[in-house]
Amino acid sequence: MQHIQFYQEAFLKYLNDFKVERQPASLYQPIQYILDLGGKRLRPVLTLMTAEIFNCDYKKSLDAALSIEVFHNFSLIHDDIMDDAPLRRGKETVHEKWDINTGILSGDAMLIMAYQLFENYDAKTFQALAKLFSKTALEVCEGQQYDMDFETRDDVTIEEYLKMIEYKTAVLVGAAMKMGAIVAEASEKDQQSIYQFGKNLGIAFQLQDDYLDAFGDPKTFGKQVGGDIIENKKTYLYLKALEFSNDEDALQLQHLFGISPSENNDKIESVKQLFITSGSADATQQEIKNYTNKAFSVLEDIAISEEKKQVLKQFGEQLMSRKV
Amino acid sequence: MQHIQFYQEAFLKYLNDFKVERQPASLYQPIQYILDLGGKRLRPVLTLMTAEIFNCDYKKSLDAALSIEVFHNFSLIHDDIMDDAPLRRGKETVHEKWDINTGILSGDAMLIMAYQLFENYDAKTFQALAKLFSKTALEVCEGQQYDMDFETRDDVTIEEYLKMIEYKTAVLVGAAMKMGAIVAEASEKDQQSIYQFGKNLGIAFQLQDDYLDAFGDPKTFGKQVGGDIIENKKTYLYLKALEFSNDEDALQLQHLFGISPSENNDKIESVKQLFITSGSADATQQEIKNYTNKAFSVLEDIAISEEKKQVLKQFGEQLMSRKV
Repeated sequence: MQHIQFYQEAFLKYLNDFKVERQPASLYQPIQYILDLGGKRLRPVLTLMTAEIFNCDYKKSLDAALSIEVFHNFSLIHDDIMDDAPLRRGKETVHEKWDINTGILSGDAMLIMAYQLFENYDAKTFQALAKLFSKTALEVCEGQQYDMDFETRDDVTIEEYLKMIEYKTAVLVGAAMKMGAIVAEASEKDQQSIYQFGKNLGIAFQLQDDYLDAFGDPKTFGKQVGGDIIENKKTYLYLKALEFSNDEDALQLQHLFGISPSENNDKIESVKQLFITSGSADATQQEIKNYTNKAFSVLEDIAISEEKKQVLKQFGEQLMSRKV
Repeated sequence: MQHIQFYQEAFLKYLNDFKVERQPASLYQPIQYILDLGGKRLRPVLTLMTAEIFNCDYKKSLDAALSIEVFHNFSLIHDDIMDDAPLRRGKETVHEKWDINTGILSGDAMLIMAYQLFENYDAKTFQALAKLFSKTALEVCEGQQYDMDFETRDDVTIEEYLKMIEYKTAVLVGAAMKMGAIVAEASEKDQQSIYQFGKNLGIAFQLQDDYLDAFGDPKTFGKQVGGDIIENKKTYLYLKALEFSNDEDALQLQHLFGISPSENNDKIESVKQLFITSGSADATQQEIKNYTNKAFSVLEDIAISEEKKQVLKQFGEQLMSRKV
């Protein structure tokens, strides 16, 4: 096993060598653009790490890792159209830089290219990877649909919200790791366990994202702090605050999530105050710990050395203590 | 071998039993809607027929046939968004009935479901089908991109136009047939030949579509006659007319393709007249015959009975003499 940074660099080098130079340029340039935009590359790094954890040269898993990253970026292009987002990682989104039609079609092409990246594996591995990929990709679509449906509903339950982030975000983390295990020909049981590890870590990761969106340090947090509050997004923090609040505070919170003032600072501060006083902020932190521990407890069942388990735990702990 | 109608009915029954009843309904109802809209189901029928031509029970190829149909309908949903089309087969398009976001996401889900339909095949067949599918699907995206790029270009060559319709339409016909051959475990050589047969027939089919759009009988033609002319679409008829015309007629044609009058009848009649007098109408009919004959000549190389070749030729001739 190497350090995380090693796998990050190895992946970036591989991504850099993957040039999309086909014609027509109007279809493929936006693909090159989004892949070059950067990002944490967490998912593909997890694929490489998992392959090595199960005693396989990480190089064998580079195509699977790249497939995961191409798919992730496909979903960003289409989600950004649906969310009408002007910026991604501080740069223009694809549909802003080009247009919506380009975003749709270049996204479609990326989804297909993600499948093509499995073609160098033998038939059995190819089928296992493509099946997992399809199941996961469909769940990601379902998660995105739930997320959009929730915008116009005021009876979303916490259970539903957790299912939504599981589908929209967490299953892809689980699948990224399971792909490493598939390439490494790990046992079915180990494949399933590492998937559960990744999925639970993915849920914790998304809850942490929700938490940082409200309580992150503006100096270090990459996005606008309070963005979810401005957009009246019914995150875990909001749903839990409603659950914990007395009638008066609940009404106040619902009122705040019904307005869109031109100046947002007061609204953000009031909502954050309610998140804290209701006990929702603490409960969210606790839930992040719960999912992280759930992920760690799955490691007990996996047939790998204690040292490798420590690497995975460190990775999980780094994710959870992150400020960005 | 059975008659074409037999395979049509068998496919419709299978399609009817394929119910998309997953949640969330907001994602899956539009998929059920477009699959229920009807259509000629030409591509899946070709898959079933080809399987039987290569001595395989057509039932084994039903999933591959359905995959082709699901993919075709995915491309219709996304194309209709890009073309801003209000109607599809006389009914509201998905993005009109719901909205653009629904069209994007339900389309994405269909593209994934098309891959899933290969999962019941053994690993070797699965890989062969999925590889052909990815290659073809990417070409269809490229064809759609060329089509959109051509709208703003006035230097499109006939060669480029033929490549565009080959990618956008014809390769899927070729792939539909090759999938039947793959499931039937036909030789590589026969797989390649039947692909060429389907591809050339697909080009003839699209040229016939262009021709009927201008010269079809309004009583029997499904769409509005003259639709391409109204939209100033640079079809084979137009490009060939430009090539054949003297300077004066060419300028007149270019002028007509630069205007969008409120009343289209005069424009349509003038353009059709130029298509005829320039010799483009005849040249288009000749080109349709050329591609049909090219398809038929490929049949010589395929190791199947004369009787089966006749069935394929009949199918081709029916397509070419169609009025709708």
